[in-house]
Amino acid sequence: MERIYFDNAATTSLEPAVLEAMLPYMTEKFGNPSSIYSYGRESRLGIENARKSVAKALNAHPGEIFFTSGGTESSNTAINAAVKDLGCKHIISSPIEHHATLHTVEYLHHHDGIGLSFVKILPSGHIDLAHLRELLEAAGERCLVTLMHANNEIGNLLDIHAVGNLCKEFDAIFHSDTVQTVGHYPFDLRNTPIHFITGAGHKFHGPKGVGILYINENVKISPFIQGGSQERNMRAGTENLYGIIGFAKALELATAHHTEHSEYINGLRMYMAAQLQQHIPDVTFNGDLHGSSLYTVLNVAFPKSEKTEMILFNLDINGICASGGSACTSGANAGSHVIRAFNNNPNQIAVRFSFSKNNTKEEVDSVVEKLKELM
Amino acid sequence: MERIYFDNAATTSLEPAVLEAMLPYMTEKFGNPSSIYSYGRESRLGIENARKSVAKALNAHPGEIFFTSGGTESSNTAINAAVKDLGCKHIISSPIEHHATLHTVEYLHHHDGIGLSFVKILPSGHIDLAHLRELLEAAGERCLVTLMHANNEIGNLLDIHAVGNLCKEFDAIFHSDTVQTVGHYPFDLRNTPIHFITGAGHKFHGPKGVGILYINENVKISPFIQGGSQERNMRAGTENLYGIIGFAKALELATAHHTEHSEYINGLRMYMAAQLQQHIPDVTFNGDLHGSSLYTVLNVAFPKSEKTEMILFNLDINGICASGGSACTSGANAGSHVIRAFNNNPNQIAVRFSFSKNNTKEEVDSVVEKLKELM
Repeated sequence: MERIYFDNAATTSLEPAVLEAMLPYMTEKFGNPSSIYSYGRESRLGIENARKSVAKALNAHPGEIFFTSGGTESSNTAINAAVKDLGCKHIISSPIEHHATLHTVEYLHHHDGIGLSFVKILPSGHIDLAHLRELLEAAGERCLVTLMHANNEIGNLLDIHAVGNLCKEFDAIFHSDTVQTVGHYPFDLRNTPIHFITGAGHKFHGPKGVGILYINENVKISPFIQGGSQERNMRAGTENLYGIIGFAKALELATAHHTEHSEYINGLRMYMAAQLQQHIPDVTFNGDLHGSSLYTVLNVAFPKSEKTEMILFNLDINGICASGGSACTSGANAGSHVIRAFNNNPNQIAVRFSFSKNNTKEEVDSVVEKLKELM
Repeated sequence: MERIYFDNAATTSLEPAVLEAMLPYMTEKFGNPSSIYSYGRESRLGIENARKSVAKALNAHPGEIFFTSGGTESSNTAINAAVKDLGCKHIISSPIEHHATLHTVEYLHHHDGIGLSFVKILPSGHIDLAHLRELLEAAGERCLVTLMHANNEIGNLLDIHAVGNLCKEFDAIFHSDTVQTVGHYPFDLRNTPIHFITGAGHKFHGPKGVGILYINENVKISPFIQGGSQERNMRAGTENLYGIIGFAKALELATAHHTEHSEYINGLRMYMAAQLQQHIPDVTFNGDLHGSSLYTVLNVAFPKSEKTEMILFNLDINGICASGGSACTSGANAGSHVIRAFNNNPNQIAVRFSFSKNNTKEEVDSVVEKLKELM
């Protein structure tokens, strides 16, 4: 049975050209990047070229790019630093953030007495920006605003320029979990009012176990992981050399092909949405499908029935990979905290289909056909 | 020019069989281990089998093994947890620890008011165990004792059973940075009085960017990196799948060939020591070369001269990789904090040669020959 992989928001396959770029560093170029001799210098050069390449893709300074073990570590670093080093005494977040953000801010709230407010979510799944302003006005202390760029379950996009400008007005620190958008959209960080963004290689056909944290050059923080002087004293530990090489290569490829891939993937998504509406009675979509939304994600609300309650299980049996929510919480089986935040309809079952450049219209047809059978 | 790599304590080459084990997870088996469908389950299975394999090699329970991004993150996690979760108000460490430990304990001392004492180092480079007992007696609060198993610069081995029993007597928490010994010595953790040990794949022909933290089942800590429920809620973030597979494979191979490799490597080391004593006037060795010492490391003290001050530079020009200290600090050029702690002789230049199973007696001969020329 051919598998159909429609869960690219969870992780993507490693691009063969990315693996090819990594392999020399997994064979002959194995030196420790911190070593001063030739083996070490070629590893160091690989890392610094990767940093320049990432900085160029995001229009940032190389000195603002730090390699980490992934998006979660990056968000933990930024959020903790805002409190420890940048004087933030209050955090404004939202109920639809990834757990990497939510669990971190809740810990700081419960254990360190940091204030915590959640901005309201509109029925479209978007952040209520008027409410965000109210929260900033009411805080009376320096705030960290942490709001994700694209929601990983419903795809809704945040206007990070609008939020960044609002933060500027209130001298707030702004962190955005951009794990679903780095490698999927162009960034122009020199002209974006933001302090921290994050990225994870495996979300755009790069390797797992490596990510970045962008730290705007105007903020100075202390390291989250302490030890050696790697990453200019900001992130200790021998570097994930091949991971870093792979991250940069994947971002380079994603950037070069952005227009073509995003149009193609969005085409698949809108085609699937149209097919589902045509063939499945009473199907709706969570999030702002026709508005400001990530082109990779289609969150479908099926009417609840004995059959749709088993839908993910039956899709799996038929070799179709899709997801009920974030992969990071799928063990929990508690339903999606994201969907609950704006759509508390107990008569719907949410399924996320998410696409990559490797998917095809034929796969969409197969999946829609299968869904018709399974309803 | 053929390169001679005598810096295996900094990092080792990736074993081809380890890369081979990793590659299927870098190509077809790319699913997110947290996803519930078949792609995810095969990744999850890969990780859980890796965990069992690591646990078996260390004679621990699989539930005590947590995968991290490396030794530094593991030590940061353990040390912070001892303070945050286990009630340790005082830390006893040593001046010859790796910076992953030293910078972490110094941060906790300066920023969180945690007490900090350093145990004395004997002229042999060993920890003064009588002094450790005095420090434990004097503390009057619950202590974390953090002492490394094998020193990465001079190779001296700590008697972790003796230290563990001493800690038990004083109800202290015991963490050991075992980054230089996991994959180099057998461990029997079910019968070792210790709470935390650490490992890094790249020190024993495994991948960079992946490590373990062993947490004794009798201690319960909160996660260092928060977010998704990976690693049984102990270490959030999409797993470094291939890294984990590679770590386990490398440890499996190292364990299977331990006796043969350790004897071979120690043979090279003692041969080089003898050759140097025979051919280089006034050469001595830092650490306990003929006593309790890691078989991979030979730390040579050359008499200081215009020529020996340039020794690493000249070795590099001749294609020979060796190190003045830890790779993690080699950018700093401040000399070695380890050597200074017990041998403050300004008329010596310390060079660390460290060996692996891939080195040969012929390489030792070449290096000794070159050193004779360079003196």
